[in-house]
Amino acid sequence: MLDHGGDIQGFIDEFGYEPLDFSANVSPLGLPDEVVKAIEGCIAGLAAYPDPLCRKLTTALGAHHGIDPTHILCGNGCSDLIYRIARVLEPKRALLAAPTFSEYATALSQVNCNIKHHFLASDTGYALDESFIAAITDDIDVVFICQPNNPCGLITPRDIIERVLTRCNEIDAWLIVDECFIEFIDNPTATTMETRFADGEKLIILKAFTKLYGMAGLRLGYLLCADTTLVDRLRSAEQPWAVSTVAQTAGIAALSSTGYVENLRELVQVERAFMKEKLAQLGIRAQGEANYLFFELDDGGKLVCRLRQHGILIRDCSNFPGLKAGSYRIAILSHEKNEKLIAALEEALQEK
Amino acid sequence: MLDHGGDIQGFIDEFGYEPLDFSANVSPLGLPDEVVKAIEGCIAGLAAYPDPLCRKLTTALGAHHGIDPTHILCGNGCSDLIYRIARVLEPKRALLAAPTFSEYATALSQVNCNIKHHFLASDTGYALDESFIAAITDDIDVVFICQPNNPCGLITPRDIIERVLTRCNEIDAWLIVDECFIEFIDNPTATTMETRFADGEKLIILKAFTKLYGMAGLRLGYLLCADTTLVDRLRSAEQPWAVSTVAQTAGIAALSSTGYVENLRELVQVERAFMKEKLAQLGIRAQGEANYLFFELDDGGKLVCRLRQHGILIRDCSNFPGLKAGSYRIAILSHEKNEKLIAALEEALQEK
Repeated sequence: MLDHGGDIQGFIDEFGYEPLDFSANVSPLGLPDEVVKAIEGCIAGLAAYPDPLCRKLTTALGAHHGIDPTHILCGNGCSDLIYRIARVLEPKRALLAAPTFSEYATALSQVNCNIKHHFLASDTGYALDESFIAAITDDIDVVFICQPNNPCGLITPRDIIERVLTRCNEIDAWLIVDECFIEFIDNPTATTMETRFADGEKLIILKAFTKLYGMAGLRLGYLLCADTTLVDRLRSAEQPWAVSTVAQTAGIAALSSTGYVENLRELVQVERAFMKEKLAQLGIRAQGEANYLFFELDDGGKLVCRLRQHGILIRDCSNFPGLKAGSYRIAILSHEKNEKLIAALEEALQEK
Repeated sequence: MLDHGGDIQGFIDEFGYEPLDFSANVSPLGLPDEVVKAIEGCIAGLAAYPDPLCRKLTTALGAHHGIDPTHILCGNGCSDLIYRIARVLEPKRALLAAPTFSEYATALSQVNCNIKHHFLASDTGYALDESFIAAITDDIDVVFICQPNNPCGLITPRDIIERVLTRCNEIDAWLIVDECFIEFIDNPTATTMETRFADGEKLIILKAFTKLYGMAGLRLGYLLCADTTLVDRLRSAEQPWAVSTVAQTAGIAALSSTGYVENLRELVQVERAFMKEKLAQLGIRAQGEANYLFFELDDGGKLVCRLRQHGILIRDCSNFPGLKAGSYRIAILSHEKNEKLIAALEEALQEK
């Protein structure tokens, strides 16, 4: 349960104060004002059950993406949907990149799926290249790709994912492209697989409000899939009321917020460049094209504990298959917080 | 998805205004003031992920029930926990009363469990009596009991549930007692199975904040189980962040609210008696000992549509195994709303 970042409560229990959390990758702008107002406005109505069909939210999402709401399913965060996909598809054999987001493997292992790891090469910065396509052997039932990849932060060229999808269509396997972080990169429109959304494509695209709108504490994700029969099966794979009224209300308000995503993307772009440069000055080669950076040190993994003493959480990535001790991920936060991290890092790197 | 009550959005889409909802059984007092304040206070912190272990909430619940927090698991509403139980126990054969809450069967059928329905007799008001114990044959792996039962509202004598548990222990089957509505009855202390909470007892008790504290839109339930290994397996059967920060915060505040549950129980007791009397005057024999009443009419199920025209939702119970068209459940709400229902019923019953 605590293999992920973001264990703020664990830090508070140990140190008695709130840490600066660079271990979870959430928008540094916090909730859009529209969302705060919407949440406040819905409190009086919380006695009623949530709409099981999320009708208002899926209608708003349909308009946002230009697709029919019957192709959209909302979940209690994207992770809820990952677990449903595993349960409904019940794949016998899945292909995952290593490293990648760990919940795919956890969810798949619950349905006794055999997982084939395609190890990404460290000398390319763990880039997903076309060797991944050759790894999709005929026995594969499902393929997950995280775009951009987590934790290493690289964007996979869209033509590679297109070819992965074509290969999946050929062998009747499902491709799940997790675009939870795609809005943080510089050009999401040129990268998203939404362009391939069409009847007959064996494609599921995952999207999250969680990270983008700073609402990780609320839980809201959704998927796009052209196959409405599959969407209905995924809907029935969980209790009817998985998405709270607060999350539905917040999601609708987030979609109507103006300028938030553009401001966020600009901030992340500027701070990402700033952090890469500052880290380079400390001798650290960091990579990443979304709202987090990845780097490796030859310190056996000591940095996490050292920064903890400075009141800072970063993500120890040594538990990702394909990575070793000394692999780290840091979120990109506000300029002020980023400067604090750099200052703490400077001290921590000198500690013996 | 819409087999349950509470489809307010469906009514609004059809009629363009909010209905009076007697089809879902939620506290008519709405959220306790402490909870409203706590939710408002947590909005600023919603960018962070929820605590996957719900540490503060389970600690508060442990103190509330006088048991160690390791025996408690919180879920995204009680339904989340029902689905986890089905997935983790993977029972081959389950015993359910008919009628009872339908999500047990839905969750069990997702793991291909064979369900044995023990039909309750209409001439006893669908009471669960000791014939249920004899129905627990050696091939049964899991038994669900809803206490008080839903939708018919009767309390099963505790000694019968005790004997069910003893029988389950003998044959190595799990007993799940769903006490989501128990706080609405007059004497929950004399009725709860918490007294049998002990090592070696094959007992899981389900509890919900949803109904009791008027927070159905927030989603929060929990279970008590002496077997910590099973608790850990149930925790791992879903994504780590199933319980939102808002729900955790609201739950902690609800437990610290003073007088709310006592006031609620008193209101429900008074209004339950009032409604039984008023319905009797209309020739309707209603039964129930919690915050909802059950009755049957010889109208082929027409009442639901007729009351809908009056802007009122009630629960059509004809889709429960063991019940037929003309079976209805109504929630007990505030005196003012209850009077509106009676007035509408009086008219609806005269319509041809």
